Amino acid sequence: MTSGLTKLPDLFEMDTSAQRRLIRKGGYSGHTAGLAKGNLQCNLAILPGDYADDFHTFCKLNPKACPLAGVSRRGDAHIPRLGEDIDIRTDAARYNIYRHGVLEREVNDLRGLWRDDLVAFAIGCSFTFEDALRKAGIAMRHIDSNVTVPMFRSSTETAPSGPFEGEMVVSMRPIPASRIDEVFDICANYPLAHGAPVHVGDPEAIGISDLNSPDWGEPVTFHEGEIPVFWACGVTPQAAIMRARPPLSITHSPGAMLIADVGEHTTPLYPYNDN
Amino acid sequence: MTSGLTKLPDLFEMDTSAQRRLIRKGGYSGHTAGLAKGNLQCNLAILPGDYADDFHTFCKLNPKACPLAGVSRRGDAHIPRLGEDIDIRTDAARYNIYRHGVLEREVNDLRGLWRDDLVAFAIGCSFTFEDALRKAGIAMRHIDSNVTVPMFRSSTETAPSGPFEGEMVVSMRPIPASRIDEVFDICANYPLAHGAPVHVGDPEAIGISDLNSPDWGEPVTFHEGEIPVFWACGVTPQAAIMRARPPLSITHSPGAMLIADVGEHTTPLYPYNDN
Repeated sequence: MTSGLTKLPDLFEMDTSAQRRLIRKGGYSGHTAGLAKGNLQCNLAILPGDYADDFHTFCKLNPKACPLAGVSRRGDAHIPRLGEDIDIRTDAARYNIYRHGVLEREVNDLRGLWRDDLVAFAIGCSFTFEDALRKAGIAMRHIDSNVTVPMFRSSTETAPSGPFEGEMVVSMRPIPASRIDEVFDICANYPLAHGAPVHVGDPEAIGISDLNSPDWGEPVTFHEGEIPVFWACGVTPQAAIMRARPPLSITHSPGAMLIADVGEHTTPLYPYNDN
Repeated sequence: MTSGLTKLPDLFEMDTSAQRRLIRKGGYSGHTAGLAKGNLQCNLAILPGDYADDFHTFCKLNPKACPLAGVSRRGDAHIPRLGEDIDIRTDAARYNIYRHGVLEREVNDLRGLWRDDLVAFAIGCSFTFEDALRKAGIAMRHIDSNVTVPMFRSSTETAPSGPFEGEMVVSMRPIPASRIDEVFDICANYPLAHGAPVHVGDPEAIGISDLNSPDWGEPVTFHEGEIPVFWACGVTPQAAIMRARPPLSITHSPGAMLIADVGEHTTPLYPYNDN
């Protein structure tokens, strides 16, 4: 996934709107991690009108797993809250088209598929708080080991809304016990990046029997003095959509997020008390 | 999807094993329609051991929707019935990796992911009978209109097996009423391409209310004297797998099929009486 980056090293030097224009024109279709430093990057979920209200409510009821950065008006491909210039139909590098939960194809552009009833949801992702923790000298084991963060289906159920339901998915990072308070304080500043952890310590308490067998991603090693810390994870809304099997659903392709004009500290649509 | 083909026109001139070697080396990752004329092309589904027996039975019980061209032995990445040289881990151009029904990523190669308990299922697809019908002078409207064949969820339930269940998905093609018998005769010769139609005429009789609103693909126009003809469709097993949400499932990426060494008239593992 990183090959696109090594081929275009000067991409990192561009400003955000130049990066987005390049993606819009089809000039870059790789992973967006590391692009647009300091700017918000978002997961995209696009649903037909019939499903949109229930999904909106689902996000509102489960703000730590589904932190909403913005929602389009029905049929409108813009989310001005994220930037005046953003066009949802062209500004992610790649999109996956699902029908009834089955992947139909991947496309670079949604202009031919856009409909009057579609609603786009931009959901924050965890890129930003990881950077902040590393800057504070707290190692991210999965990044240092070059693997995908381990994620687990927890026994915590989301609050259901219409056809959207299911377990909360959590990501896990080993953290030195002495720095847990600091981690909570830092992460609470990034509510769109899932905010502060949802659980610390015993995995069994949230229904996870084996940290070495994640449901997504890969296992990581623990160093002495580290304990497992769990965050709500953006796979939660993805899994809920796949389970609901709407006639049409569109997501960004894995890793190819939507880059916003606004900063990573942007307030979610539905703020929550992060403690 | 066809851009890969236009860039490599001499791909069509290669023999099948040269085409497969090119795909294996990562030299071609496009659509396989039109490649390896006369050879069988297969859908791939790869499942963990825990799910494999139930899925095998599901295919056996629903042979028109899930015509099995071959099944690997547990942990074995070869299906000698399709060709001695074929390696399931490398010989499709692109693969999609799903965990619990959520797409994790697309890869070009499964060697790093292969496990001792995985079982690969090669399922026939509809490419071949369409060619045969066109050669007989029976137009395929979706091909002439350059759209994806319209597919519908029918009211016919598949025979369930373990977690695999759900409605049979059917594809629809308009056929002149005077040529229906001929269509049945021709298609019955291609049991791995879903064989003869499953229904002719009234869509309502199989639970389809509007031919202009397909669940997958795009609507097609009817000419005078044509009636709708329905075939069992390979989206059926895909939808069943997505619904079962196994911890791991791997499929070929849409359009990037596995090219076999054997011909398109190969007998399915579980032949059926096609009438």
